[in-house]
Amino acid sequence: MNIHFSRRARALTSSAIREILKVTERPEVISFAGGLPSPASFPVDAIARASVRVFARQAQTALQYGPTEGYGPLREWIAERHGVAAERVIVTTGSQQALDLLGKVLIDPGSAVLVETPTYLGALQAFSLYEPVFRALRSDDDGPLPEALDAGLAQDARFLYAQPNFQNPTGRRMPVARRVALVERARELGVLLVEDDPYGELAYDGERLPSLLSMNPDGVAYLGSFSKVLAPGLRLGYLIAPPELARKLAQAKQAADLHTPSLVQLLAFETVRDGLLDQHIESVRALYAAQCEAMLDALARHMPAGVRWNRPRGGMFVWLTLPAGVDAGELLPRAIERNVAFVPGAAFHAGEAAANTLRLAFVTVPAARIEQGVAVLGALFAEALEHAQAA
Amino acid sequence: MNIHFSRRARALTSSAIREILKVTERPEVISFAGGLPSPASFPVDAIARASVRVFARQAQTALQYGPTEGYGPLREWIAERHGVAAERVIVTTGSQQALDLLGKVLIDPGSAVLVETPTYLGALQAFSLYEPVFRALRSDDDGPLPEALDAGLAQDARFLYAQPNFQNPTGRRMPVARRVALVERARELGVLLVEDDPYGELAYDGERLPSLLSMNPDGVAYLGSFSKVLAPGLRLGYLIAPPELARKLAQAKQAADLHTPSLVQLLAFETVRDGLLDQHIESVRALYAAQCEAMLDALARHMPAGVRWNRPRGGMFVWLTLPAGVDAGELLPRAIERNVAFVPGAAFHAGEAAANTLRLAFVTVPAARIEQGVAVLGALFAEALEHAQAA
Repeated sequence: MNIHFSRRARALTSSAIREILKVTERPEVISFAGGLPSPASFPVDAIARASVRVFARQAQTALQYGPTEGYGPLREWIAERHGVAAERVIVTTGSQQALDLLGKVLIDPGSAVLVETPTYLGALQAFSLYEPVFRALRSDDDGPLPEALDAGLAQDARFLYAQPNFQNPTGRRMPVARRVALVERARELGVLLVEDDPYGELAYDGERLPSLLSMNPDGVAYLGSFSKVLAPGLRLGYLIAPPELARKLAQAKQAADLHTPSLVQLLAFETVRDGLLDQHIESVRALYAAQCEAMLDALARHMPAGVRWNRPRGGMFVWLTLPAGVDAGELLPRAIERNVAFVPGAAFHAGEAAANTLRLAFVTVPAARIEQGVAVLGALFAEALEHAQAA
Repeated sequence: MNIHFSRRARALTSSAIREILKVTERPEVISFAGGLPSPASFPVDAIARASVRVFARQAQTALQYGPTEGYGPLREWIAERHGVAAERVIVTTGSQQALDLLGKVLIDPGSAVLVETPTYLGALQAFSLYEPVFRALRSDDDGPLPEALDAGLAQDARFLYAQPNFQNPTGRRMPVARRVALVERARELGVLLVEDDPYGELAYDGERLPSLLSMNPDGVAYLGSFSKVLAPGLRLGYLIAPPELARKLAQAKQAADLHTPSLVQLLAFETVRDGLLDQHIESVRALYAAQCEAMLDALARHMPAGVRWNRPRGGMFVWLTLPAGVDAGELLPRAIERNVAFVPGAAFHAGEAAANTLRLAFVTVPAARIEQGVAVLGALFAEALEHAQAA
């Protein structure tokens, strides 16, 4: 049987990085590569208790087909939290599905899609299946530069995709003034903003900056997720979109999976309805802040001169920049030989890749192993720098 | 904000039928329109007990990210049940997602896709987003005609989609000889078969005919579902495909939702692992057989001469054919005025529609209401026939 694949499928390839990182499942490997939240942060007891209540009181609803847009009370809870009408909310099977649905209803082959530099790999993968042309926005430590969004770049762009809070991969957060300027520029140029916000609740000091959505509800599609604040194994996310877009997204979702599992939606709603989420997030923030501190301390102790990194104020990632000319991708196999893993920064770039960058995830690794792993990386990078200077 | 939708999204429209059928949620309406399984068939206690065990023993696995292909023990359980290697199995978020993934990796705009006459509406919707050209295979009461699959029809076709067991909408089942002939013809012509089998376990007498998959594992992509044998609110299905296709499907699934909720997969596995499924299916079969009998009895009592229907030996649907020239779509609003709903057959056709057909679903309606609803339809159809003869 000679299977004839679609053009988009023929373009799908297994990533070389993914193959290399498969070894990180070995217990001896200290992995800063994963994007997993810490299982210590899961409110297991609360979800287990909610599950007992759901099966006792609402088993038939939890086990039957439900509306494509999502379970009504959960949609209303989300809508209230974001100050929007419930008709704008679509519950999704993780926010990865929201990315896929946006690609499906907005991207034609050859359409321009604007992204940050660097940007979230999972979004690049989801959008790529719809064969867009990516245009990368110049960005700095505060996020994309509003002045980089000019009429030329915006021409025929279907949307601009951004993670304003503790971005994956950099951990950076857009300050309020940057948000205001970006929303204003997008509005002037008629560019839809896609605001992906899985980490917004994870500011270590609890400070929530205003969302792009709040600044222009009719010009922003907002993606939220329960993965980082409750548990990713639920695969529960949501979209908030202008009504016309929400309707198309719901039609596309119906063809994609009919609806997100009813059981998961009822369980999440039953877990969060009495205010548990806000108490619980406090403990996640405290845990992640301590993990971040351990990472920053270890970096300060072990990184050779010439390596730079940011100081995230929330989220799960820190971004390292090696001196120009040092290729993090080439160093990865050598790091793995020494049982330490990271993700080279090149994977996160749509345009020209910064080969001298890398992402370190710090929330699942115990502090003592962070120290140990960063020491290994520091020594490796020092060797590479010496070698580069000698060459 | 002027949102620029993709071409595929602009083609998405809300179905007129769906709008009409929204009224069927009113409690006074006797609805034969829904495709929902009976909630009386859900093994609520078994799933609730499994849920307690999962939270007690495997909470962290159930709440954490998992592999895109699915939870290992569940994949192995499925593989063993179908006599295939586990690497061929991909767990999906309902079998609707399997349809979407197949469309994504196999269909380019303008690709030919072969379907039965009539065929499953949800498949037409899922595939349509990838803009194929549908070619309808001539079919009879035993399913598609193997001789209709000729070189001309097969030319450049990406696959042939069929439901061999108790098809939605007709309730018909392909006899073994028909299966053998179809598989042979597809093999000769190099046409991939997509075998969608949500109702295979629902033969009232328990007889399981050999799957197309079992006849040619390298030429068939098989879609299975837990929706009709366990509960649809779990949104749990699976694909079995030749390894090359399974790999592409997994890559596409990663972009679509990363993986099906871990919690749902563990819960289903914990529910079925000790053989509960086979005991449970017995009770679903008995329930559905009784429902079908009630429907067939009512049809025999109330339908006017000239109306024909089949006698399903499994599943959830019966297919009615009115005399030529009577349009079931025109009769639907009049049926709804009398508080009875059905789905006109035209919706299930990719090619020329048979306007004089309709689908009746019978598993959620109590027997007394089946009697009452069919009496209303019988009277309505009798009036329509008189009117057609008078005209």
